[in-house]
Order: sequence, then C-alpha cells, then structure tokens
Amino acid sequence: MAKVLTSREENYSQWYNDLVIKADLAENSAVRGSMVIKPYGYAIWEKMQSVLDKMFKETGHQNAYFPLFIPKSFFSKEASHVKGFAKECAVVTHYRLKTDEDGKIVVDEDAKLEEELIVRPTSETIIWDTYRRWIQSYRDLPILINQWANVVRWEMRTRLFLRTAEFLWQEGHTAHATKNEAIAEAETMLKVYADFAENFLALPVLQGVKSPNERFAGAIETYCIEALMQDGKALQAGTSHFLGQNFAKAFDVTFVTKENKQELVWATSWGVSTRLMGALVMAHSDDNGLVLPPKLAPIQVVIVPIFRKEEELAAIGKKVEPLIKKLKGKGISVKFDNRDTHKPGFKFAEWELKGVPVRLAIGPRDLANGTVEVARRDTMEKDILQIEGIDDKIENLLIQIQKNIFQKAFDFRANNTFNVDTWEEFKAQVEKGGFIYAHWDGTAETEQKIKAATKATIRSIPIDGKIEEGKCIYTGNPSKQRVVFARSY
Amino acid sequence: MAKVLTSREENYSQWYNDLVIKADLAENSAVRGSMVIKPYGYAIWEKMQSVLDKMFKETGHQNAYFPLFIPKSFFSKEASHVKGFAKECAVVTHYRLKTDEDGKIVVDEDAKLEEELIVRPTSETIIWDTYRRWIQSYRDLPILINQWANVVRWEMRTRLFLRTAEFLWQEGHTAHATKNEAIAEAETMLKVYADFAENFLALPVLQGVKSPNERFAGAIETYCIEALMQDGKALQAGTSHFLGQNFAKAFDVTFVTKENKQELVWATSWGVSTRLMGALVMAHSDDNGLVLPPKLAPIQVVIVPIFRKEEELAAIGKKVEPLIKKLKGKGISVKFDNRDTHKPGFKFAEWELKGVPVRLAIGPRDLANGTVEVARRDTMEKDILQIEGIDDKIENLLIQIQKNIFQKAFDFRANNTFNVDTWEEFKAQVEKGGFIYAHWDGTAETEQKIKAATKATIRSIPIDGKIEEGKCIYTGNPSKQRVVFARSY
Repeated sequence: MAKVLTSREENYSQWYNDLVIKADLAENSAVRGSMVIKPYGYAIWEKMQSVLDKMFKETGHQNAYFPLFIPKSFFSKEASHVKGFAKECAVVTHYRLKTDEDGKIVVDEDAKLEEELIVRPTSETIIWDTYRRWIQSYRDLPILINQWANVVRWEMRTRLFLRTAEFLWQEGHTAHATKNEAIAEAETMLKVYADFAENFLALPVLQGVKSPNERFAGAIETYCIEALMQDGKALQAGTSHFLGQNFAKAFDVTFVTKENKQELVWATSWGVSTRLMGALVMAHSDDNGLVLPPKLAPIQVVIVPIFRKEEELAAIGKKVEPLIKKLKGKGISVKFDNRDTHKPGFKFAEWELKGVPVRLAIGPRDLANGTVEVARRDTMEKDILQIEGIDDKIENLLIQIQKNIFQKAFDFRANNTFNVDTWEEFKAQVEKGGFIYAHWDGTAETEQKIKAATKATIRSIPIDGKIEEGKCIYTGNPSKQRVVFARSY
Repeated sequence: MAKVLTSREENYSQWYNDLVIKADLAENSAVRGSMVIKPYGYAIWEKMQSVLDKMFKETGHQNAYFPLFIPKSFFSKEASHVKGFAKECAVVTHYRLKTDEDGKIVVDEDAKLEEELIVRPTSETIIWDTYRRWIQSYRDLPILINQWANVVRWEMRTRLFLRTAEFLWQEGHTAHATKNEAIAEAETMLKVYADFAENFLALPVLQGVKSPNERFAGAIETYCIEALMQDGKALQAGTSHFLGQNFAKAFDVTFVTKENKQELVWATSWGVSTRLMGALVMAHSDDNGLVLPPKLAPIQVVIVPIFRKEEELAAIGKKVEPLIKKLKGKGISVKFDNRDTHKPGFKFAEWELKGVPVRLAIGPRDLANGTVEVARRDTMEKDILQIEGIDDKIENLLIQIQKNIFQKAFDFRANNTFNVDTWEEFKAQVEKGGFIYAHWDGTAETEQKIKAATKATIRSIPIDGKIEEGKCIYTGNPSKQRVVFARSY
C-alpha cells in the first residue's frame, strides 16, 4: 500500500488533517465548521467519556442536563463573561419556516422570537439561573454536577477536533458554601484531568494556572493542564475554573449559613472536550498513522490471517478461536480480520493507520510451528512467539505499550523544554518550538507585547513553581518565578 | 409528612407534573418549553441509555456524531419530510452579537448567515448528505449507525418529558443494499425496543405499524411500540421506520452492485427519547410517588436507621456495613441514609416518593433481635426478617418486584382493552379510555373523521393481527382486520 499520509516533516498540519480523515476519525460536514465524528473516532471518544465519567462519579459528582438555548439577556448579567462568549455565537431568531408563493421554504417572519436565544457556548449562565431555585440553605450545598453536551462557538478558522463550531464536551458546574471549598474543588478536578491525561491519554501535562489574559471569561483563577505536541506547539488539554462569587452575584444566588446569615454562593466550572482527540492524535502518531494508547484503543489487538485457500483460513480461524476467547476474558478487545477481499499487506497498513496497538499475524507455517507473529504499533517491532501462553504476554505487552507511549512523549517534552534568559534567545527558541521557561514581570501589557512580537503566549504559571529571582525577558523588570511560554493550538 | 402529590383520581395530569417535579426528575427552565433534567431523573435516563446502547451494539451498530445544524435547503429535498419537520423549528439566522451605543447586547445585523441553519429536529437529511460520500459500492454496505443527541421541535404546548422543545434521544440511521434487508433492520429494531420496554421499563407494548396519517414524514412504513398509561391514554414509546429509497433519492446516494449496476440505497431510521421517562412515570407510579422497576432504579435499596442517639446510629452503621458490601458485590445499588437532619418518617416518605424498590429499616430493637424491616415499594408490603442471609432474599425480591410491576401493567392493559363494533359504543369507550380494537375501512378520510369526532387515533395496526372480516365502525365499509384506537399523549 502506498503512503497515504503526508509526512510530519513535510507538512505537520497537512499530516494531521490527512490522518484524522484517513484513519476514519472525523470529516468536515456540509455545515461550515461542523464536523462529523465517524464511528472509529467516536469509539475513542466514548472510551474517554467512560473513563472520565467514572472519575467524576468517584469524586462525588452527578450528571444532569440543562437547556441548549440560553436567553440573550442572560449573557449580559456577568460583565466579563459576555465579553468572552457572547460575541461569536449562533443566534436563534425565529421558530418557524413556511412555504412561500414560489413553493420555496423560507423563514416565517411572523414567527420571530421576542428575545433571541443563543446556542450555548458554555452553560454557566443557564445553570446559575437554575441554581438560584435549588439553593436556599447551606444544607443544599455543595452541588456537584456535570453535564455531557454539545456546545457551539462560531469559530472563523476551524480544524477538525481542535477548533470546530460545534464540539462535544463535558462541563462541571459546582456550588459551594465557602471560598476554600470551591478552590479545593477546582484543584481536585485539575488533578482528575491530569490523572486522565497521563494515565489514559499517555500524555504528560504541566499543571498550572493561567495569566489574567488567558483566563476563562468570568473566572477568578483558571487552572489548566498543558501538553506539548510533536511540532513543539502547546495544546491546552483541560481547564478548571474558580469562579468566585461572580455568577452567584449575577444571578442572585444566595444561601442561609448555619449561623443564619445570607451569603453569596461560591462556584467552579471545569471542562474537557473533543479537542482531546486532537491532542491524542498530535502527541503520539507517526507517518504510518495513529498510535493509540491501549487504554483508549477501540481495538487493542487485531489478528490477520495469512492464507491463500479457504481451508487455510478455516484452519487459522479454528486455531485462534480459543485465543480470542482468552483475550476477551481478560477484557481485551480483539478483531479477527478474516476479510477475503483484501491482502494481508493492505490489512497491515490499514491497522497501522488506525493505530491498533498489537497486531498478530498467523499463516500456515505458524500453524505447523505453533507460532504467531506479534507486531507492536508503537515501536513497529516484530517477534515470532509460541502461540501457547501468548494471551498473558499480550496482556503485559499492552501495559508496556501504554507506558512506552507515555515515556516517549515525556522524553520528547523533556528534550523540548528550555530555560531562556534573554529576549534574543527567547525569540529564536519560539521559532524552534517547545516549552520555554522564562521570567516575566507579571503585567498583562508585557504579556501582550511578547505575544504581538512572537505569537507565543503564557501557557501556564506552574503551581508550586520554584521561587527564583530573575528579570523579565522583555522588560528586564524583576520577576519571582519562571512561567511557561509557547506557541499554541 | 403530608401528601405532596395531587392524587391520580383527583387530577391525573396534575399528579404527573407534581410527581416529575417533586421526585426531582426534571423541571421547567427559563427557556420556554426546554426542561432541566435533574440528577435523579438523569440517572434513570443514563440507565436506559446504557441498556439500549448495549443492545444496539449487540445488534451490530456503532455510534457516531453528526452536526446539530442543518442547512435550510436540505429540508426541501425530501418532499414529505419537509412538511412534517421544517415547520416548527429553531432557526439560526445570525452568528454574532454586539454591544450597541447604549451598551446593550444586540444581534449584529452584519453577521447574517447566507443560508439559515435549522437546529436538527431529526437527522435524516444531514446524515444522508454524509452517506453519499461514504457509499460507493455494495462493499460499503450496510452502514449501521446510531447517534445519541439532543433535538429541537418547536412545540407550542409542552409537558415535562412528554413533549418538550428540546429533548434527548437516540436516532439510528442505516443504509442497505436491498429492500428486504432494510425492512428486516426496521423490524429488528422494533423488537429491540419492545424487549427493552417489557424487560427493563416493565411496560407491556403493542407492536404494530402506523396508518399513513400517523407515519413518520418521509417513511414508507413506520413500526411502533405503543403502551397504555394508567389514565387509559396511549403513549407511543418508540418507532422504527422503513424509509425505502426516499432519502437516497433526495440526496443522490447510489451504489454499485455486485453485478456492477448503479442502484439507490435503502434506508431505515429508528428512535426513542426522554419521552420514555414520561412513560415510566405514568405507567407505574402511584399517589405516594414513583414506582421504579429495579432494573432502572438509580438506588435499588435504601437503608434507613432508626435512632435517637449517636451511639445507636454508630451501632446500626456497623451492623449494616457487611450487608451493604454483600449487596454491592451482587451489583445492587444501596444507599445508607444516615442523615441526622431528618426523622425516619420523613425519609420513608422521601424514598417512597423517589420510587426506591426496597427499603430496609433497622433500629435498636432489630439490633437486639438480629432483624430488619423490609418494605417493598410496589405493593407497600412490610415484613420483619432475620438480617442473616437477607442479601440473597433482597436479590430475589428485586427480581420479583420487576416482574410484579410488569404484571400489574399487563393486567391493567388487559382490563382496559376492548373489542368494539358499533359507533355509539366506540364513542362511549373512547371517553372511558383504553385500547379499542375496532374495524376500520382503511382510508385516511375515515381515520381523520373519527379523530375529529372523538380525538381518538389509530395507534397501531397489529403485526400478525388476526384476519377477521368486519365492518368499519364509522362507514360500515368492509374491513379485514381490527386496528387499535385510543386517545394518546
């Protein structure tokens, strides 16, 4: 099979698009900026959902569902929120179509909404409008709710998974009696996200907070996990916001304390989205296709029979049947690719493209010898092993592959993380990519000037970062801690 | 605790609304016709989703995700579909808001879409537009895809779960090479729905097809499951459509057959929605609250300690700990309601309201005697049993309760199913409610006249119905089979 992908070196951006489409993850739809998530891509997203959902429930959260539409006036209630979200959004203005004189379908102007509805770009406003009715007393707190939903942000430049007009996500929205409890919640969810990223996505992440410029519109503090992609650009993989009492103030949500006082409620919100699919692809995959961490791979093991005659296929089928049963018994997903319409070479390339972690190939000679060829996707290494007891070896191999994919990404990040102390060095390094630890004077002006000059932004202010006196790379003003700069997705 | 619900006899409709709200299933939101599904209600929906999703996958389907927005022109492509769906819908006309001179947030008239977008009322059009790109050859068929999604239909009169502007559902969309295969698929999914309704919702359903008047807009045949509610009205609980080649024609989806001919693709679609939540409530619940079938109850067993002093609570807690562990080991969800803020009587009423199938109460005297009080929600019967070995008894009890709830609904339906042969009798029976088997001359005109006169519609034309010569109750014209009439939700 000919190479189906542009190589990363040739054109990283094209490689990504090729891969997303050719590995059957997603494609563009007839609606500008909206993607179709194809079954193979959706199966990976379902695995992510299932793991995260379990983690949310284990940390005491429940799921619920809030309306897709938000009255326009709700956005005006929280001043900084409206600036961030009410601009590029889908606006519903009418609720009926009709057939005109020429038989064409047109909007019925008589069916104009009194107040326009906004398709949710995020749900803080509609949820806090609801929480007002749910919260009277400290006994009603905390409220720990998550929602799996679609949201819409009218992005002008879109890319599959990374930036689409409509995307899928989860959004947690919690309400607390005290500031400390809300901060603890925001921090807990950051840890949940980091745990998920490292142990399932196999993606090492920096944990930190955002500078004021990069904060969520309406947040007091935005915690984030930040990952490094293979082209040296950063990708924000999840955020958790301490919202203070901003939304409680905007929507008049108060509660009676144990001491019988009326107080405003404290809030957090946190989310990850189908953007994680983009991170997964860009962090690990290669010029042959996807490299999926076994824990998120819809198919963990594929078995390709090598045969010419029907009888050979039948004999192989019979031989692998007990193996398939054993693997399934271990909770390992297996596919026996017994199609007679394609040659083994085609199948090998296809399953490499789709990132299946382990491939077994078995032909008539293997039958005679009691062997099987085992190929791992991450290193492309092959080995001939005895089929007897192979199930235990495969189980271990999947664990090793998961670890190796993480380690590779970890080493890549280590090799692409730099301490930089001068402006010239900084500019040069930004061009080359990577996480750049540099001193910054702490002002929004300087941050904006650096961004204007280099397109690099502060991705993360490390939590528990080393206190280290230094001078801002741009202004030379004093700084107490390095922050992490990078260009980003 | 005082009665919190209007009784069914007093006002069935009010009883339903009270119950949905007071049992914390859902509530109305600030957006007309859109509901908030609360955590307890959503937990039931999640159980439904999880069972159905497994059933879909076992029958060979995969999940995917298609865009929320559909270009207006897509609706014009299938003539009968546009009549049914493009009328009452949410229309997105703009993609930006701005702040006007007075500082108010207004729609930016410069950001008007060239073509309006419709928020999906159902996804046949956008999906068949996509399938055109996916299908070239018979090798690409069948496509067996399901989507879990939100949809919007601009209903004027809304009721929680039963009819809301936005609702959650799943929609299956399949593509086939032959007519017979598509019909078999539509029938398979009807069976899946019937199985789910009877074995999980504990809801006996009639399986049949719809008359042309009641058919899905764009379908050749609509298969349906129809259930009877406690007030004698019918509720359509799921539909599966054989769409023929209508959408393939509209979206130009053809394939090359094995014989190298170009042919149009055959289609089905099928769906159930959060409406099932309404069916669940209305079919089984009583004046004390929800009665949940154990298989869909978020909490299957609640343990209420009876105590005055902290030490008593501690002793009870210690006693029930191994029991809770055993029950959880059997996959039974248990809640130990150890709140010290409420009295046992309050808790009993609350868990009755929420429909928890089994309640255990245990006090100091039980501790002394090694006993526990077991109360079942469906019959409200109580019994004092030895705590030793109670876990096995509870496991059996849950199975019995599931069966009993189904049996009760089955008997209710049997007692409210009537063969009627005259128009006078028919009119009288419609007023009283129930499923009415009557002869009909097979014409849409007669069906409409009957509906205009009585508000009863044909709910189902039984599949494999008994062939029985008769005369139409309205026109006296000949008929070969009784059909099922009822007023409906």
